Amino acid sequence: MSAYHPLSEQEAIQIALSLDGYFPEGASLTSREIGDGNLNLVFHIVDSSSGKSLIMKQALPYAKVVGESWPLTLDRARIESDKLILEGELAPGLVPNVYKYDPELYLTIMEDLSDHIIMRQGLIGGTRYPKFADDISTFMARTLFFTSDLGMNQQEKKQRVKAFINPELCKITEDLIFDDPYTNSPNNSFDPAIQDAAEALWQDSQLHFEVAILRDKFLTNAQALLHGDLHTGSVFVTPESTKVIDPEFAYYGPIGFDIGAVIANLLLNFAGQEHWSTDTETRNDFRRYLTDSVRDVWNLFDQKFRALWDEHGLDRIASSTPGYQDYYMNRLLQDAVGFAGCKIVRRIVGLSHVIDVDRIPDAAAKEKAQRLALAIGTSLIRNNRNTQSIEEIIDVALSLANK
Amino acid sequence: MSAYHPLSEQEAIQIALSLDGYFPEGASLTSREIGDGNLNLVFHIVDSSSGKSLIMKQALPYAKVVGESWPLTLDRARIESDKLILEGELAPGLVPNVYKYDPELYLTIMEDLSDHIIMRQGLIGGTRYPKFADDISTFMARTLFFTSDLGMNQQEKKQRVKAFINPELCKITEDLIFDDPYTNSPNNSFDPAIQDAAEALWQDSQLHFEVAILRDKFLTNAQALLHGDLHTGSVFVTPESTKVIDPEFAYYGPIGFDIGAVIANLLLNFAGQEHWSTDTETRNDFRRYLTDSVRDVWNLFDQKFRALWDEHGLDRIASSTPGYQDYYMNRLLQDAVGFAGCKIVRRIVGLSHVIDVDRIPDAAAKEKAQRLALAIGTSLIRNNRNTQSIEEIIDVALSLANK
Repeated sequence: MSAYHPLSEQEAIQIALSLDGYFPEGASLTSREIGDGNLNLVFHIVDSSSGKSLIMKQALPYAKVVGESWPLTLDRARIESDKLILEGELAPGLVPNVYKYDPELYLTIMEDLSDHIIMRQGLIGGTRYPKFADDISTFMARTLFFTSDLGMNQQEKKQRVKAFINPELCKITEDLIFDDPYTNSPNNSFDPAIQDAAEALWQDSQLHFEVAILRDKFLTNAQALLHGDLHTGSVFVTPESTKVIDPEFAYYGPIGFDIGAVIANLLLNFAGQEHWSTDTETRNDFRRYLTDSVRDVWNLFDQKFRALWDEHGLDRIASSTPGYQDYYMNRLLQDAVGFAGCKIVRRIVGLSHVIDVDRIPDAAAKEKAQRLALAIGTSLIRNNRNTQSIEEIIDVALSLANK
Repeated sequence: MSAYHPLSEQEAIQIALSLDGYFPEGASLTSREIGDGNLNLVFHIVDSSSGKSLIMKQALPYAKVVGESWPLTLDRARIESDKLILEGELAPGLVPNVYKYDPELYLTIMEDLSDHIIMRQGLIGGTRYPKFADDISTFMARTLFFTSDLGMNQQEKKQRVKAFINPELCKITEDLIFDDPYTNSPNNSFDPAIQDAAEALWQDSQLHFEVAILRDKFLTNAQALLHGDLHTGSVFVTPESTKVIDPEFAYYGPIGFDIGAVIANLLLNFAGQEHWSTDTETRNDFRRYLTDSVRDVWNLFDQKFRALWDEHGLDRIASSTPGYQDYYMNRLLQDAVGFAGCKIVRRIVGLSHVIDVDRIPDAAAKEKAQRLALAIGTSLIRNNRNTQSIEEIIDVALSLANK
């Protein structure tokens, strides 16, 4: 019989106390369950006397993803923990430290990051994160390069593909990002004010053509071990620190999918600045900060990935053939642009939205933000395979915002 | 302790006798080991009184692939047996029947096909196989479509990717097809007479660029469960029957790799007709038969794959978007052309050759055949991403042969 059961707070404290040498002798622990209860239990455990603390995250055997509870494999906890540990090795300091994983309880015990906030919240509050582009580009370049056929033993990579087969979490992405928004699906959710724009997506076969190609890449292109859900809600920040969390969607997929997630969520906040900025000048300034971040994220990723390739490339023909690196990097940019577009569109008309846009209280501003996001998203999808420079994406965002 | 050990002929007979109801009571079995001894033991077991017979194939824990013995996982026997059984379900009548698989002995007991011959031998002898294009296109269309994201449940497909992770056999292909021929590798092997042509391959960075792209597809593009080694030595034929054997290289890869293998081996025989045909008219006729076969293989595959997609397509957006099927099929053709080119080149300058060319006794004819094969192969590689029609491939082969 399995030992698995959802932990009580008291049990969580007992497990924390049993961690060798973490809390001082005689620690007096308190636990608070801070998860959203949809997918996981998250215990925040604190020793009030020493001030030491940690996070315990336990997977629940169901999810409330499409409005009702459905069973969801506990195996995602193993994937998340293994991916976090690997990320910690490849990109030290950019993820929470994992202290222990309990495979019977599907429980990860890790560093408490309560001094950070969720980046999406910070951006909505108008905070700038000067280290973010540098940190996230390092995170992506290193985790993606060193899990790809360019940067790791190609036979070990295949074993890693096997270890990170993740059908149930991939299905969520396949349905919610690459299918529902482009048809009249019961999973969709959008404001009646933009019904016309949603319906236009369902009819647009040029858009469907590009989405079908991008969907196929998500289904078949095992390029590197992705985070798989790298939006600004999966990033804890302070102005000095960046920590990427929640890699339970990890699987071997196209590198551009992670990059596109970052770009998409910066641009969703860009659209939301319709409301969050207090005046036009503030709005233009913050939008400029966001597009600068998009530019920096790509350019720094591009530089770092190429530098890793030049120094650590293991694939003889890929490393020694003139022009191949440029071709490969341009293809990553194109994929990133296409995936960014899909991720923007789904956050406006699909099941799962972002508060950057959804929490705008003024109806007219919200509608304007939604239409702007859709215009940017569909433009990125339409043009993804022709993109030659990140500047094109920035131009699209700025010119649509100023229309 | 494992029960595995290489079987003696006497043990093979005992196992054959223990097969429920296969041989009649009192059968008097003889066994002959007919394997090449490099990778597998193959026992041909016959009951002289009833005439019934079967084949027992047992994996050996080593291979003599690069001149010396190296350890090679026995797990390939599981992959081969599982793939054969699946092929039998998806393409009935086009593979040997599997009677039993013994996972401890890594032993597959299957239908005896001694009334067939290896197609490569038949083609060298000038025999035409009027059913081949129809049969092999059915085999490929059905095994590839129904294991792809287009034709099977996409979550079950991921589990199948996992079950067919095949690092050691893939490494053979990655090294011998997509690397060695393009550099001065000790694994290469070619006649001194074509030293200049081999060296030209090592210097040709335009060619390397295309090979790097094709290699990347082989490494990352998990489109469908491939046979993985579909040359004319893996096909048993009679004029009325086609049976595909030896799928131990099976893994999830790009569909064009299987199609390209068939095309490449027809064109290698085309090059070898320099010698095997007795006069110019016979040669031109047989070459025309071979290029007709190339055309038919692709066109019939294309028709059948599309028909399966139209009838059984499970991917909503891929099935309902105008133009996507045409785009997808053209990409398969382009991949097939590129992979065919790589497979031709490696059979002339790489480690493993084909008797269609290698057994040509006359030195001048052999050199001419080798140079023709290389010219065709490099042309296919160079032009793969621009190919729009199978006619272009046929034109290349015929015009180079007539130069």
